[in-house]
Amino acid sequence: MRLMNNIYTLTDAVILTMDDNQPLINTGRIVIENDCIKKIGQSSEIDAEGKIYSLKDKLLMPGLINTHSHSVSPLFRGMADDLKLMDWLNNVIWPAEKHLSPEAAYWGAAMCALEYIENGITTFVDQYYFAEDIARAVVDTGIRAVLAPSVFSGKTAETKNTFHAARNFIKKYQLRSGETNIYPAIGPHAPYSCEQNLLEEVGEFAKEKDVLVHIHISETVDENREIQEKYGVTPTQFLKQTGILDNKVIAAHCIHLNEQDLQTFKHKEIAVSYNPISNLKLVSGIMPMKAMVEKGLLITVGTDGAQSNNSLDLLRDLKTGVLLQKQFNEDATFIKAKEAVEFVTKNGAKAIGLEDQLGSLEIGKKADLISIDLNSVNLNPVHYNYLDNIYSAIAYSASGKEVLDVIINGEFIMQDGNFLKLSKKTILNNSKKQAEILMKKAGLL
Amino acid sequence: MRLMNNIYTLTDAVILTMDDNQPLINTGRIVIENDCIKKIGQSSEIDAEGKIYSLKDKLLMPGLINTHSHSVSPLFRGMADDLKLMDWLNNVIWPAEKHLSPEAAYWGAAMCALEYIENGITTFVDQYYFAEDIARAVVDTGIRAVLAPSVFSGKTAETKNTFHAARNFIKKYQLRSGETNIYPAIGPHAPYSCEQNLLEEVGEFAKEKDVLVHIHISETVDENREIQEKYGVTPTQFLKQTGILDNKVIAAHCIHLNEQDLQTFKHKEIAVSYNPISNLKLVSGIMPMKAMVEKGLLITVGTDGAQSNNSLDLLRDLKTGVLLQKQFNEDATFIKAKEAVEFVTKNGAKAIGLEDQLGSLEIGKKADLISIDLNSVNLNPVHYNYLDNIYSAIAYSASGKEVLDVIINGEFIMQDGNFLKLSKKTILNNSKKQAEILMKKAGLL
Repeated sequence: MRLMNNIYTLTDAVILTMDDNQPLINTGRIVIENDCIKKIGQSSEIDAEGKIYSLKDKLLMPGLINTHSHSVSPLFRGMADDLKLMDWLNNVIWPAEKHLSPEAAYWGAAMCALEYIENGITTFVDQYYFAEDIARAVVDTGIRAVLAPSVFSGKTAETKNTFHAARNFIKKYQLRSGETNIYPAIGPHAPYSCEQNLLEEVGEFAKEKDVLVHIHISETVDENREIQEKYGVTPTQFLKQTGILDNKVIAAHCIHLNEQDLQTFKHKEIAVSYNPISNLKLVSGIMPMKAMVEKGLLITVGTDGAQSNNSLDLLRDLKTGVLLQKQFNEDATFIKAKEAVEFVTKNGAKAIGLEDQLGSLEIGKKADLISIDLNSVNLNPVHYNYLDNIYSAIAYSASGKEVLDVIINGEFIMQDGNFLKLSKKTILNNSKKQAEILMKKAGLL
Repeated sequence: MRLMNNIYTLTDAVILTMDDNQPLINTGRIVIENDCIKKIGQSSEIDAEGKIYSLKDKLLMPGLINTHSHSVSPLFRGMADDLKLMDWLNNVIWPAEKHLSPEAAYWGAAMCALEYIENGITTFVDQYYFAEDIARAVVDTGIRAVLAPSVFSGKTAETKNTFHAARNFIKKYQLRSGETNIYPAIGPHAPYSCEQNLLEEVGEFAKEKDVLVHIHISETVDENREIQEKYGVTPTQFLKQTGILDNKVIAAHCIHLNEQDLQTFKHKEIAVSYNPISNLKLVSGIMPMKAMVEKGLLITVGTDGAQSNNSLDLLRDLKTGVLLQKQFNEDATFIKAKEAVEFVTKNGAKAIGLEDQLGSLEIGKKADLISIDLNSVNLNPVHYNYLDNIYSAIAYSASGKEVLDVIINGEFIMQDGNFLKLSKKTILNNSKKQAEILMKKAGLL
């Protein structure tokens, strides 16, 4: 329990609020009290309180929200590329994964969180096992996370019963609600990796505990074929039958959906996590975003893991993903820069059910903010009074390179590019060591 | 004339040479004498000479070569996006361009060169007018450039006779050969913007002066339709008839080519500049890279201008461009990381006819090198002895963010992220000022 208030002021920033009531404040000030935004407005109209930080020539905006990831993944980065999906899984990823240890998971997740923070991601949605170890890394690095322990029919290096491990994790972190930035969720892996009765049980459990379900749906044509052969319906319709979609759901990939599936997404209010880089790398296909937008589905963006992306820079992925959709739909006007920025801010917040706390800079919301270097050559010239130019700079020019400051839950996590929590060198050295252990055990090095 | 030798040593770097005889040196040393590489090898086997710079935990590789750009373009960055091509040209780009001045061109080009350098581009191929002003910026920023003044049937803000201006530029810089890092070339804009007789004359002139031709070919379906209606053939076949393809040619975009066109490219040894981001943004189409690779065409990559890309970061574009081709061809094994890195190094050098001087790190070649921060979180873990992992880190993880040092023609242009030539602030301020003048004159601000 905090007895003393922690209060400080960020001043003279260009502020992109993502709040349509006052989208752009060109010389703005934000007063942060403990974990929340107390005041926001023009510097000339707001009294500073506490320590004052000048953010001249920096743009403040809401922290980015990455809605699909596998946090241990940097350990597998660049282990092998340019392979067919099944060669890549059978010969590289699975042989390496089966040697994972709690220590490896911790350092992989710490590395991942560090990369997210450096790239302006303040909240991520994760599906992986070793959730307890990932949670430790989340706490130590100061990031905010929705952690959905993976559940599937089979054992892992962590546990023989993934559902049991997931239940324990969720109960524990629900009891600790408010103590950490961790929001427990549940991650039934995919329709092809979970038996029907397991999905039914997970669905019931999620309802009972009121937790988010994070699942892969229709990532590949093969998945659709397999489910069709086994159950006679599409993955989405199969999942609907299990009752699991009656929960709050974020579905990753969502590439091979038919009209009925899209209707189900609409009806069940399933949030979509678009993973453009992973989908291109693994030749999974291109997500039907236009049909989704026409249906009014909630679209968010995920990096997926570093084994299928190779960099965890959400702004890089956003640019590629949006431009790809323009070409795919042969419409240069499809998805405007503003909508693109919403995908990784407001929409992400809504997908995780925290739209009252995250996704835009407004009084009373959590202080999850990032600053962008407006002196960066890659963005310039930037016209501070020209809203569309600012959206364009974020959606189409910026990358993690421009992120200078990161504040999460009111705490400075990165300041002028310097990570303030764990030692960066320790994370790099340990994750490299753990990756090399895995590669050696898997016969890759 | 230099009387004194300038000699120095870069040591303890991981060196990715792009020379197949010794692709990776894991603790390497390079001795640079004046503008050339004098020695290269393991640190333990090479004697240092002159001042010694430690590059521990940095990767040295050849500077990147960007084969299609319009150097003044940062002035137009983010002026307007998400528009149909003709709306964008008619309402934004052309109205702004017609107010260009020599001063605006200089600062736009200086900004562009600075962005290239920060992103590891040491050589660029340019097609634009105001070539004299761009040349001044090239000299002042220390970059290497193939400058092809744009030629077309019509006047510009610079001149009423673009061919005349181009001829003067080429003659002047051919006389000054060796004094600067500028290689004059000629840039007939496109088959639809140059009349047949102009193309014939430009082709003759290029032959006489032995200069490279840099041209846009088959960027859009509309271009193909227009040329078909006017001349009854494809743009490539029309150009072939004019004789202009009998020169050394780099063709940008090359999207809508048929089998006969590809044969012509092969027969005439036309180098291809793939511009994936620009093509996606403007919904131009996807370049048929697989057919090109099967024909053995030389493939290179271009950023195109900042008005149709929004960032001039060749490594970002390379990743997107290669992954896009995997998906487009439904083959995850198409284009390996090594080939991708060759596109922006060796192939670029060959396209401009400087393969004996640029594109790989070998004794006697020009000292155009960049260093990559191997401690960057976005790449890690990096396994220094694992060649495929290094190629992957460059092709799929790295971006301009990781570029720390840039040496061009033996001279340190950027050191540990600090640009050593003009004042960065002066370039930013002046380019912003010039952009705002253009926007105001065009009624956009």
